[in-house]
Amino acid sequence: MSKILVPVGLSNKHIHLSKEHINILFGEGHELTPMKDLGQPAQFACDEKVDIVGSKGTLKGVRVLGPARAQTQIEISLADGFVLGVKAPIKASGDLAGTPGAKIVGPKGEVDLKEGVIVAARHLHMHTSDGEKFGIKDKDIVKIKVDGERGMIFENVLARVGDTHALELHVDMDEGNAAAMKNGQMVEVIK
Amino acid sequence: MSKILVPVGLSNKHIHLSKEHINILFGEGHELTPMKDLGQPAQFACDEKVDIVGSKGTLKGVRVLGPARAQTQIEISLADGFVLGVKAPIKASGDLAGTPGAKIVGPKGEVDLKEGVIVAARHLHMHTSDGEKFGIKDKDIVKIKVDGERGMIFENVLARVGDTHALELHVDMDEGNAAAMKNGQMVEVIK
Repeated sequence: MSKILVPVGLSNKHIHLSKEHINILFGEGHELTPMKDLGQPAQFACDEKVDIVGSKGTLKGVRVLGPARAQTQIEISLADGFVLGVKAPIKASGDLAGTPGAKIVGPKGEVDLKEGVIVAARHLHMHTSDGEKFGIKDKDIVKIKVDGERGMIFENVLARVGDTHALELHVDMDEGNAAAMKNGQMVEVIK
Repeated sequence: MSKILVPVGLSNKHIHLSKEHINILFGEGHELTPMKDLGQPAQFACDEKVDIVGSKGTLKGVRVLGPARAQTQIEISLADGFVLGVKAPIKASGDLAGTPGAKIVGPKGEVDLKEGVIVAARHLHMHTSDGEKFGIKDKDIVKIKVDGERGMIFENVLARVGDTHALELHVDMDEGNAAAMKNGQMVEVIK
């Protein structure tokens, strides 16, 4: 069988906001301003930015991603966590129970978030049709092989397969730099 | 054969200075002040710190490592390089020809370093006696397997075997965070 190749999407620190928190941070009735479409369908980077404040430091100008979500979620790297002084666990998106919080500062107000700061576990998005083609099911664990001078095999990569997913490996900046990966670079899936 | 296990040494950004540059940055005749012994024999972290200035930003309070070296060398991560605005290549220590420079600011003076900024290629130090025991020679390329939720196999790890080396895997903070490694954690060598 030929190699399964997928494009890399590097995730820098970012925040997903609830409607309630958008209203507090940017003013009642504010609508997020799309700046750039992301690799996943209907997801977009926004013009809006906020500051994230922890016990040790601040991450300034953290990009808001849209659309609004049911629950606010802050995704940082372990390196960002050292800057903030927040011990964020490595979690799948949405798995926020028991995670630490942080203060969010926007132009119109502040939110003292009780929980929602995570380091996103690396994962591989693919459409249902890709999953059928590659023989990979939702929640399968696969490996990713990266070539080059910082060649590496990432183990424990969660496959997320469904009709709202587009083919893309999501890793954070620590992982991207460790393997010297670039956005859009093709890497190999090992089942 | 049983597993070959080695301890991890995480390298944060740091600088090695020449005698000439110590004199300029800290004053004529200044001697570095050892603060903490490092894993490698006769190497030590110093009380002294400097600021490193690039075209885009500054890394403040970068730790000096001693003793003095023949040539000044600045070791940063790819993430640090984005902060500085310096495209540092991934190189073995000492392989500085053609690498970019940066401004170094100390309490008594400044150095406009013409070359010497690198991202240190990951490498595995071991004493000659370890090399004989493990069947690994100087300049061999090995792999390192890290277990855990960010399990990973690092390829292209250069072995540095000699009488002045002590058993230790050196990776930078990007690599350490990508695999969620801690200082002193034991990881497996794969030949």
